[in-house]
Amino acid sequence: MIEYTHESQYKNFEVYIMSDSPRSSKSRKVLIEGSARHVHLKREDVEALFGNGYTLRKKRDLLQPGEFLTEEKVAVTGPRGTVERVSVLGPERKASQAEVSMTDARALGLAAPVRLSGDVAGSAPVRLTGPAGSVELAEGCIVAKRHLHITPADAEAFGIDGRETVRIKVGGERGLVFEEVAVRVSENFFTEVHLDYDEMNAAGLSGEVYGEIL
Amino acid sequence: MIEYTHESQYKNFEVYIMSDSPRSSKSRKVLIEGSARHVHLKREDVEALFGNGYTLRKKRDLLQPGEFLTEEKVAVTGPRGTVERVSVLGPERKASQAEVSMTDARALGLAAPVRLSGDVAGSAPVRLTGPAGSVELAEGCIVAKRHLHITPADAEAFGIDGRETVRIKVGGERGLVFEEVAVRVSENFFTEVHLDYDEMNAAGLSGEVYGEIL
Repeated sequence: MIEYTHESQYKNFEVYIMSDSPRSSKSRKVLIEGSARHVHLKREDVEALFGNGYTLRKKRDLLQPGEFLTEEKVAVTGPRGTVERVSVLGPERKASQAEVSMTDARALGLAAPVRLSGDVAGSAPVRLTGPAGSVELAEGCIVAKRHLHITPADAEAFGIDGRETVRIKVGGERGLVFEEVAVRVSENFFTEVHLDYDEMNAAGLSGEVYGEIL
Repeated sequence: MIEYTHESQYKNFEVYIMSDSPRSSKSRKVLIEGSARHVHLKREDVEALFGNGYTLRKKRDLLQPGEFLTEEKVAVTGPRGTVERVSVLGPERKASQAEVSMTDARALGLAAPVRLSGDVAGSAPVRLTGPAGSVELAEGCIVAKRHLHITPADAEAFGIDGRETVRIKVGGERGLVFEEVAVRVSENFFTEVHLDYDEMNAAGLSGEVYGEIL
């Protein structure tokens, strides 16, 4: 099974404000990042999976400030199958959670709902397995809802302040318009869209790519 | 690995011509079918994979007239991995071909281009393995380009005759507009859209679903 990680090869990010769009007086380009299957863990699950007193080891920072990829991997198991070597993201959270693609969810046999990260109430049960043991989550497996992280300043510059969702277009031979992209605004965010790999692959996207907020 | 097949649970297909669309004087609903990974085989490859004189056994008809799912399965192998139990579709063709999702292609380690079925010149090399042996295809592995099968009468009714591509919208919490949907017209077709499972999952689609030609 191929190992996916957050792809963040891009070094320089710029918000392009262009004046030559046929659709509007200014075009609104935004970075798109593919978000691979991953888990977030609470303290006691870190210890159950990796050992008493264990601390997650940072591998590299992600674009969202404070978030990081760790060296740790777990297996994610549902009634129909297992996906091995799923990345653990840090820092620790209050509740453990697995974010998988719908392709993964079908292979695992899980009816994982489409949710924003952290909104796990009533989501699918799932088993996580690490080198020191397993934990059964009664809920916590979701398919990530596509979303836009954005700073208040960028939301104002883009003219989308106050909107709960936006539409984002990508071009190319598998061009798509993503409807219902949830808008999440925070001073602490780095402005970018998160899609999962079903969405990235459906659009034929990889590497450093940009979409247009319609 | 979960086994996907063409999903064709629907019993009755109707083309809806409605007059209440806010976008146009008539709405244009069309059936969408998810097309799972599959292979087509030429005669000598059927024999190489399943044995001399072997004939593919029909399991059930597909919606496109003359096309059928067979009982046969093969393994599809690239430099990075193998996908087991891939369905063989009938009837036999002049050239063997594997159609996989981009998710599959990445897992297999194949740079499979996005193509319409049959357009395999210069596509990715791939190995197929059946119970009687293996064949190495020097080319033949593609990611299916999204397309609309349509009869000339439906193309005229929908007002899209002569168009090479159309845009198709689906609703729901993962709503999408598929751009660049290739239009394939034939008297022998059943009118429907074919998407692969990256596209179906990106849109959160399963079962009997319809899109709107924009």
